[in-house]
Amino acid sequence: MAIVLQEHANSAVDIVKVIKMVLIHDLVEIDAGDTFLYDVVAGADKAQKEKMAADRIYALLPEEQGAEFIGLWEEFERQETAEARYAAALDRLEPLMQNLHTEGYTWKKHGIKSDQVFRKNKPIISKGSKTLWEYAEQLIHHSVDNGYLKE
Amino acid sequence: MAIVLQEHANSAVDIVKVIKMVLIHDLVEIDAGDTFLYDVVAGADKAQKEKMAADRIYALLPEEQGAEFIGLWEEFERQETAEARYAAALDRLEPLMQNLHTEGYTWKKHGIKSDQVFRKNKPIISKGSKTLWEYAEQLIHHSVDNGYLKE
Repeated sequence: MAIVLQEHANSAVDIVKVIKMVLIHDLVEIDAGDTFLYDVVAGADKAQKEKMAADRIYALLPEEQGAEFIGLWEEFERQETAEARYAAALDRLEPLMQNLHTEGYTWKKHGIKSDQVFRKNKPIISKGSKTLWEYAEQLIHHSVDNGYLKE
Repeated sequence: MAIVLQEHANSAVDIVKVIKMVLIHDLVEIDAGDTFLYDVVAGADKAQKEKMAADRIYALLPEEQGAEFIGLWEEFERQETAEARYAAALDRLEPLMQNLHTEGYTWKKHGIKSDQVFRKNKPIISKGSKTLWEYAEQLIHHSVDNGYLKE
């Protein structure tokens, strides 16, 4: 997904850095437990749990490699570089596509409404890729029109 | 895996090309059906089935991107470049590691013997990475010693 959509990043990106970031970030979430985007309570200690997981996992690698990966994980979390922003846009877009293809499975399960989806996704996705945000907007409207997501 | 083990490739590789190759190659196998490495009968029309799958899948992409991916898939299949050889080494190493961690699940299921494993994997893995082949050899001996793989 990162590779195929690369041309849509707002700024030119080093794609190897992006691929490393999305993988590193997901490994940490697998270890720390992924927090549901719209879950405010579980979101509270997310950062601390993920930091502990990152430190533990990347200490398993040779020192130099571990340090590089911790650095990339922190760069992703800070959201300051073009790579971090594009990687985060993909990380948000992917669950929207999953919800589209499952007719809103997790949205329905948790009673999510479209304004929550806009609020949580627009800032992140549009900062990484304006064209991917345009696509995401269409996807959300289509989901509301088809009853996958509440208005 | 491609990223973390990059330094072990026999020749310097363009890692983006390697990542694209392994992903493209696996997508084709998902579509065409993966052929069990030691299955001589199913192996006979493997190339033809995979070629059809590759043509179909990559025609779904914009023309320029599709052509790039078909080109990389063919480069992988030809096994002439450093990237293709390193990618193929990873593609062979990974199932060995899975068999180690499942105490020889597919080896036992199909009654595979260690000489078959050596014959099928040594040429491919060692051409991509001598150090990864050294590791694979240890893994195979360890599997025989522990009864995961027949002598």
